[in-house]
Amino acid sequence: MFHNDGFRALDRQECLRLLAKVPVGRIVYTRQALPAVLPVNFSLDTDSAVLLRSTASSDLVRATDGSVVAFEADDFDAVRCSGWSVVVTGRATVVTDPAEHERLSRHGPSSWVVAEDGVFVRIEPELVTGREIIGTRN
Amino acid sequence: MFHNDGFRALDRQECLRLLAKVPVGRIVYTRQALPAVLPVNFSLDTDSAVLLRSTASSDLVRATDGSVVAFEADDFDAVRCSGWSVVVTGRATVVTDPAEHERLSRHGPSSWVVAEDGVFVRIEPELVTGREIIGTRN
Repeated sequence: MFHNDGFRALDRQECLRLLAKVPVGRIVYTRQALPAVLPVNFSLDTDSAVLLRSTASSDLVRATDGSVVAFEADDFDAVRCSGWSVVVTGRATVVTDPAEHERLSRHGPSSWVVAEDGVFVRIEPELVTGREIIGTRN
Repeated sequence: MFHNDGFRALDRQECLRLLAKVPVGRIVYTRQALPAVLPVNFSLDTDSAVLLRSTASSDLVRATDGSVVAFEADDFDAVRCSGWSVVVTGRATVVTDPAEHERLSRHGPSSWVVAEDGVFVRIEPELVTGREIIGTRN
């Protein structure tokens, strides 16, 4: 899939519209010099930054705070061999401003598991790319 | 999700069994010093290596051949806040042996789009890790 003759590039607005439709994406980063990837539930902030919640002491937060990461979400129909994927690339930062933390506690992504020391991570939408694939079985 | 108190680690056999159940995963690599991720359909070889198909001239092949990559697959139920993810980390290599290419042409993953110069990429299952999450809404 995703050969040059099998996909259509999506513009930024299409990408953001699709991102808003799915609850889970994957944060891609480097951990101990190796590529790492972790699924997370997320939401989009009003400025289209990707928001996720983790624990302050997590490997994820330690490895990504201040680094450029990729964030990917997708949705595929294996029967039709079709679907889309979107990748947001940008700097990840832990939200440290108390007012921002308070705002996101009300309007940001909820955690799928209870986290007493939960923090919010923002991924700036510096580069937003996406592809739609329309397979040969449509 | 995936806080210390919300997930269960999966052993290698559980990971491979789950991987075999889904058609699409995501290859994670480095492109021009930035984290990159691309969804691909895949299958498992008899030795549990991850197999995928791409074009010889693709960015994916150029960026990953000979490099250590991560390969991730998952399945989540957003209503129940539960699911699993598996990550295979290992060296990616393009299959150049004609007999191997021929074998994979019959038994390897098919392409979702037509590719005249298709090649197979193997990802060695050097490290196989996985997590199951059981959310708070079960």
